[in-house]
Amino acid sequence: MTQHNHQTAPTQFVEANGIRFAYRRFGKAAGVPLVFNQHFTGTMDHWDPAVTDGLAKDREVILFNNAGVSSSSGEVPTTIGKMGANAVAFIKALRLTKVDVLGFSIGGFVAQEIALQASALVRRLVLVGTGPRGGEGMATLTPEAQEIFGATYDEPDRLWLRVHFTKSEKSQAAGREFLKRFRLRAEHRDPEVNDKVAPAQIEAISEWGAPREEPFEYLKAIRQPALVVNGGKDVIIYSVNSFILQRHLPDAQLVLYPDANHGSQYQYPKRFVQHVSAFLSEEDAR
Amino acid sequence: MTQHNHQTAPTQFVEANGIRFAYRRFGKAAGVPLVFNQHFTGTMDHWDPAVTDGLAKDREVILFNNAGVSSSSGEVPTTIGKMGANAVAFIKALRLTKVDVLGFSIGGFVAQEIALQASALVRRLVLVGTGPRGGEGMATLTPEAQEIFGATYDEPDRLWLRVHFTKSEKSQAAGREFLKRFRLRAEHRDPEVNDKVAPAQIEAISEWGAPREEPFEYLKAIRQPALVVNGGKDVIIYSVNSFILQRHLPDAQLVLYPDANHGSQYQYPKRFVQHVSAFLSEEDAR
Repeated sequence: MTQHNHQTAPTQFVEANGIRFAYRRFGKAAGVPLVFNQHFTGTMDHWDPAVTDGLAKDREVILFNNAGVSSSSGEVPTTIGKMGANAVAFIKALRLTKVDVLGFSIGGFVAQEIALQASALVRRLVLVGTGPRGGEGMATLTPEAQEIFGATYDEPDRLWLRVHFTKSEKSQAAGREFLKRFRLRAEHRDPEVNDKVAPAQIEAISEWGAPREEPFEYLKAIRQPALVVNGGKDVIIYSVNSFILQRHLPDAQLVLYPDANHGSQYQYPKRFVQHVSAFLSEEDAR
Repeated sequence: MTQHNHQTAPTQFVEANGIRFAYRRFGKAAGVPLVFNQHFTGTMDHWDPAVTDGLAKDREVILFNNAGVSSSSGEVPTTIGKMGANAVAFIKALRLTKVDVLGFSIGGFVAQEIALQASALVRRLVLVGTGPRGGEGMATLTPEAQEIFGATYDEPDRLWLRVHFTKSEKSQAAGREFLKRFRLRAEHRDPEVNDKVAPAQIEAISEWGAPREEPFEYLKAIRQPALVVNGGKDVIIYSVNSFILQRHLPDAQLVLYPDANHGSQYQYPKRFVQHVSAFLSEEDAR
């Protein structure tokens, strides 16, 4: 059997909760698979093959579109809780009983919900460019995010140079390399998301980010080992929120990368793959 | 030639700045050596062989006592700046022209001074359980540090169970393993420091930690790639100071470990050796 990769993995479908979920599955079929949860308005094509293929060397990786996103049917729910429930239904529909879960940005909120709602299903968590419920500057899109997502771009892909990278020359150069990799899959790409996705996701983000009493107490219930990763200069979900996650999760490591914005894992894919691989494959915690 | 390790490396001496510096040098003689700067009242024997021997697999490591400490002659200066100048003189006396520098706690302050005073000498920096000039809670020993260092212990080594580890069962168990390793070197140990060391070091710490205008501006001048490591629950130099270092150094990664106090590298020596080795051996930054 040919082992697929990010470019060649076919889009498959599985049904659960009345939704037809689109997914792709590839890598070394051994051990616990790693399920990826995508960012705001992103599809399976928005992952970086340097990251997905890098991590697929030692484990199976599973990309999917949650309900209502791109090639998956259904509607985007307006709460992260319901997105989490859909993700759990998707994972169970694949008859998996134990997974590692990676979530980026809003996908990191969903990853936390998966761990809260289906604790026994989750072995380890990787939370990238994300934050806790009621985190700092999370009640609405940050002013920087509003400006960046509100602007128009000659080429639409250039949006991601501003979302994921800092303004420094080095970071922007890394961003241009990322955009090339992100277009390497030439055939059978996902359709862009429809117009209903962004408003529903923004509503869910606002509900998740709204200030509340003792906002971080819920993190005590997430007992899985977690690796929290971000750029030190994230203007989309402020980096301090990664620090807050580390402080309040019972068993979390934090890694912050230099001169990096929201998509630090795309600026330093080698470092990121190394850190995540070491975390997912270590046998004991010492 | 036999390759020495933490247990067997003889204490050697070199003279510079009118001081006879005691040092030990072992590991794989290849590439850039790593110079270790020790914490408050510590000697060469206070390093963990799991860390020093772990890092010595791929590079030469150099332990030393700065001026006035244990087997080194001279007086402990009352500023970190002068300690840095002595460290630079020591490194140059070994005829080294490029080193990596690791500093733990007050040793991390000295490491920053080495990079500031002799930039061309330093390739990369590893800053462990430390903070910036004028950091949070750094103007005096923290209340927790005053209590911990002020208490009396049945066995003096037990002090380090409280300085370096949290109160959790798991952390304390890791601490007891550390204490065994730390006594593995049975012969030719360093003498304990004399009574003048603690007061002079405290004076230097207070000068370094005192609040000032724009305290973190100086960090812009430290352009070397840096790896900042700490426990997420450091009560000796609060963990937020590691976050501040990452934010203000031009090219720094941050790693925080879970359920870990000041000596997180002794709680997770395997993780720490892996993170530091990866950082010191990576060829480009991606």
